Amino acid sequence: GAVRAGAVPPGQGAERVAAFVDAVFAIAMTLLAVELPRPPAELIEGDQTRPVMAARLWDFLGDNWGTWLAFVIAFLILGGVWREHHRTLDLVSRVTPRMMWWHVPLLLVVVLLPYASALIGETVANPLAVCLFAGAVAALLLTQAGLLRAVVRDGALRPEADARELRVRAGTLAVVGAFWLLTAGLTWLVDGVTPLWLL
Amino acid sequence: GAVRAGAVPPGQGAERVAAFVDAVFAIAMTLLAVELPRPPAELIEGDQTRPVMAARLWDFLGDNWGTWLAFVIAFLILGGVWREHHRTLDLVSRVTPRMMWWHVPLLLVVVLLPYASALIGETVANPLAVCLFAGAVAALLLTQAGLLRAVVRDGALRPEADARELRVRAGTLAVVGAFWLLTAGLTWLVDGVTPLWLL
Amino acid sequence: GAVRAGAVPPGQGAERVAAFVDAVFAIAMTLLAVELPRPPAELIEGDQTRPVMAARLWDFLGDNWGTWLAFVIAFLILGGVWREHHRTLDLVSRVTPRMMWWHVPLLLVVVLLPYASALIGETVANPLAVCLFAGAVAALLLTQAGLLRAVVRDGALRPEADARELRVRAGTLAVVGAFWLLTAGLTWLVDGVTPLWLL
Amino acid sequence: GAVRAGAVPPGQGAERVAAFVDAVFAIAMTLLAVELPRPPAELIEGDQTRPVMAARLWDFLGDNWGTWLAFVIAFLILGGVWREHHRTLDLVSRVTPRMMWWHVPLLLVVVLLPYASALIGETVANPLAVCLFAGAVAALLLTQAGLLRAVVRDGALRPEADARELRVRAGTLAVVGAFWLLTAGLTWLVDGVTPLWLL
Repeated sequence: GAVRAGAVPPGQGAERVAAFVDAVFAIAMTLLAVELPRPPAELIEGDQTRPVMAARLWDFLGDNWGTWLAFVIAFLILGGVWREHHRTLDLVSRVTPRMMWWHVPLLLVVVLLPYASALIGETVANPLAVCLFAGAVAALLLTQAGLLRAVVRDGALRPEADARELRVRAGTLAVVGAFWLLTAGLTWLVDGVTPLWLL
Repeated sequence: GAVRAGAVPPGQGAERVAAFVDAVFAIAMTLLAVELPRPPAELIEGDQTRPVMAARLWDFLGDNWGTWLAFVIAFLILGGVWREHHRTLDLVSRVTPRMMWWHVPLLLVVVLLPYASALIGETVANPLAVCLFAGAVAALLLTQAGLLRAVVRDGALRPEADARELRVRAGTLAVVGAFWLLTAGLTWLVDGVTPLWLL
Repeated sequence: GAVRAGAVPPGQGAERVAAFVDAVFAIAMTLLAVELPRPPAELIEGDQTRPVMAARLWDFLGDNWGTWLAFVIAFLILGGVWREHHRTLDLVSRVTPRMMWWHVPLLLVVVLLPYASALIGETVANPLAVCLFAGAVAALLLTQAGLLRAVVRDGALRPEADARELRVRAGTLAVVGAFWLLTAGLTWLVDGVTPLWLL
Repeated sequence: GAVRAGAVPPGQGAERVAAFVDAVFAIAMTLLAVELPRPPAELIEGDQTRPVMAARLWDFLGDNWGTWLAFVIAFLILGGVWREHHRTLDLVSRVTPRMMWWHVPLLLVVVLLPYASALIGETVANPLAVCLFAGAVAALLLTQAGLLRAVVRDGALRPEADARELRVRAGTLAVVGAFWLLTAGLTWLVDGVTPLWLL
């Protein structure tokens, strides 16, 4: 039976799904920074002159450029997907079970992204680390595309919303996701794939 | 006296309880990934060829399959119980003191699950670690069942909601919880209990 | 000028303060568990028989009983104060600047409680660690009492709410807070103060 | 097409942006305390008398005064900017794309502040660490000023709100941000800049 105003079945209200997803994204984005490598105290302080200390910290930060690149990319992509999710939930009248299922892989990847980011931060040269990171980003984009498709298929859109616009956005997400999947594969063939991500 | 619209006593509004529970679940689920073991940098980078680096990382991830299994199970069970909680709060008109009390053990177990998950990740062979993890999962399911029962007992359901459906769900949770309790006990008798969890 | 319905000045809406406080409490409570000591892997796994492994883990957990006591106490007190806060915000029509100021020390203590809890977990015998933990709990209870008093003083209560009930609750919080302050002081005189907390 | 009541385009509702920003700020503020240095267990416990243990812990905490200063400053500034953000969103009718873009550097800095705070905690003497911390605080204040300016420029204010007041607040934020930028630069010339922050 219909329990809430607007005949939204219990457990399908979009507000609480939004609040939960917000929290997971916010925590994952903040944890990205927790994974950043800390300089060992003895390296950057001590009996040295101030310019030497500064130079050592500078070198330390520079040596870990892979981490910082992964951090910024992961931050921007999580932010972008959150924004996409926000816009999507504003367009739907309820969260159907199928849409809920798409949240399982979506949030699983969000939660794993800081781990993948820390892995690539440890070593940009390791092809498996690069492949896992690119694969996680691809999975994030593709599950978000799947979520958009589920919205259209289940007819969960509000009456005034435009299904075609949603399909276009799902297509864009799928294409960008496929690009990341491609770089994940390329990793095994050539060496310097990471610069491609700056596109 | 009644303070809010709908005569919900102060401190019994379901929205803020929902927001708080959402945050605790979201953080616990994200922290699960923080507990995942990180490969030591010297293992997976360095002067080795790229295939060797990849193989070492692969071996490292494979050696920790217990962690990954615990991670995925804990993630799915936390997600499932959150979903159950979401559906339940959509059916109630207020959160009674008894329901609030059930949240104490519920959230305590949620908060401890990443710890139990890290413990089993360290060693799948340790029967106490396995027992604690299975016990935590069982406690999570059983307290959620207790919460559902408290809803029915306190008559906190919205008029249109079906108490029988809630009792069925509470029963299902109790049965699955008992199954986990059983595997927690079996741990002490036989060796390979963990595969049972995949059921 | 009045911007929102009900003439609540901008920045004084109770909903968003509630959401923010919820998040801080939820994170602090979850982080309490992150501070729990992890057994070194070599202690609890390896070539030993299964009963030996279990016994070692059991010993490890038992040796850290101080941590577990601090964890449960901190968890219950944070939960209790959150509940108190929830009930209070349900009674007010807006969050005045004075109430906002009381949130500064309140949240500062909430955020520091996991640290104090980890400190006492390391060593229950250290009187300064015990004193800091008890002091943090006392500060938490006393700032919450201060917040309740600010609500009454600023006339921020909804018209139907009972100011006397709030004053009683503020008094109770102050008394319990003073008890914790007392144990913080007693720490320096006698040895086994922590059992008092179980009262 | 307008989807929601009040003609707010999808993805521009202020509530969910507020919830997301709340979560990021709350997590960053709580993580500040996680970065605080933990005393090594052997230092503060063991076979020593109780006064010796207390004295050692006291010395440890005192030796890390740089960390505590950075922690309190970062906590207060994050709290202050959150408050500013809260007040601002209460004054707007929607979050325009330009305002959304300003959230990217804003949240990036919020997320990085615990890292900068941990860095300066390790060594107050390192001029680069001091410069990065002061730079992060300056960036936080200046992006918030930019956000306020974007609100005015996009005409996103509610009809009753006062644009002049917002411009004044943006100016104040810019001035304080410039002061922090100045101390970041001064770091390279003179030695004891950090006391200036207490102003």
